[in-house]
Amino acid sequence: MNKFLIVVAGGKGLRMGGELPKQFMIIGDKPLLMHTLQQFYTIQPDIRITLVLPKDHITYWNTLCKKYRFDIPCSIIEGGNTRFQSVKNALNSISETEGVVAIHDGVRPFPAPQVIKNAFSTALKTGSAIPVLPLTDSIRFILPKGSKVADRSSYRIVQTPQTFNLALLKQAYSQPYDELFTDDASVVEALGKEITLIDGNRENIKITHPSDLLWAETYLKRQ
Amino acid sequence: MNKFLIVVAGGKGLRMGGELPKQFMIIGDKPLLMHTLQQFYTIQPDIRITLVLPKDHITYWNTLCKKYRFDIPCSIIEGGNTRFQSVKNALNSISETEGVVAIHDGVRPFPAPQVIKNAFSTALKTGSAIPVLPLTDSIRFILPKGSKVADRSSYRIVQTPQTFNLALLKQAYSQPYDELFTDDASVVEALGKEITLIDGNRENIKITHPSDLLWAETYLKRQ
Repeated sequence: MNKFLIVVAGGKGLRMGGELPKQFMIIGDKPLLMHTLQQFYTIQPDIRITLVLPKDHITYWNTLCKKYRFDIPCSIIEGGNTRFQSVKNALNSISETEGVVAIHDGVRPFPAPQVIKNAFSTALKTGSAIPVLPLTDSIRFILPKGSKVADRSSYRIVQTPQTFNLALLKQAYSQPYDELFTDDASVVEALGKEITLIDGNRENIKITHPSDLLWAETYLKRQ
Repeated sequence: MNKFLIVVAGGKGLRMGGELPKQFMIIGDKPLLMHTLQQFYTIQPDIRITLVLPKDHITYWNTLCKKYRFDIPCSIIEGGNTRFQSVKNALNSISETEGVVAIHDGVRPFPAPQVIKNAFSTALKTGSAIPVLPLTDSIRFILPKGSKVADRSSYRIVQTPQTFNLALLKQAYSQPYDELFTDDASVVEALGKEITLIDGNRENIKITHPSDLLWAETYLKRQ
């Protein structure tokens, strides 16, 4: 079976004086994005990786790869203005039509080996595999005026790698963009397809806030 | 204004061979629960604290207080079978009827000073103050069969301290228990009262999973 991985590393611009985008920040011995790529490559060495970067990050990334002697094979694709367009660009660059493809956030360096393996094997069987977790906090639903309690046991937090039959995902991404497309599962769902949920792992956080970065550094040290 | 704090430290049993409940685990120089209490006491030294503990944890807690020379004044109250009953027991132990009361999870050691101050001042004005945060991950709604995407921008993660006018909260807790009471805001809401949301802080996590404990240790060291 062909196994593909599309890593989306959008992040913010590399403007002079601006903060370094999270995916390039160093945790442990190398930039965060390299940890993410390495995790998949270690678990599935036969995986074919497409890395989606904003146009103005590509040169910087290549410099980083040289500096850190990072040699995991990746096809680099220019991202679009939206995440939807970025994934679509990456899918268009894959000429094959058979196989399984995982879409993963560049700033999630710690998907568990078991989650990666289960994502590919489940998507092969059912067409999709979306790692989810129960919520640890209560949630509220925001109304036009005020808010109300929502039953947290009816919700799941959604992570990546969101993994799909390649032909199915290509078909999904041929639909016109819709505001409700918040992740890849929602794009496939718009075809009327049922999504398969699998267990995620708590450590597979999206590095978003400074406190996440702090956590990631410590977690790496403990590994 | 009378300021009250009820800290609910339910946790799991202290069975022989079982894991130590999170609230008693050592982070930095002392048990987690002591960090939580100290944070409020430092910001609001005039606060009157009621600590709710399961019956079979009280002796252990007293031993810890001696060992760590922990001398922040707390009234200790025996918890009930549910969180609802525990808060109710604590409210019943407060004879006053005027003031503002914050209910806080014992395993949330890092509410920001600004959040604590804002919670009390907002609850004084509007009757309630619930710290919330936007979700960083997508969420899905679980259906009897399958699941569907939910618009995460319409939801907020709910934290503590959930802070209320004391008389209002006492009235709310005189209602019979309902399964929809997942937090204190939902109990007050059942009276038909509108809830005021305030900004929470990302670091104020509920220590639930082993990776949270690791995070807490790291965060403390950086403080």
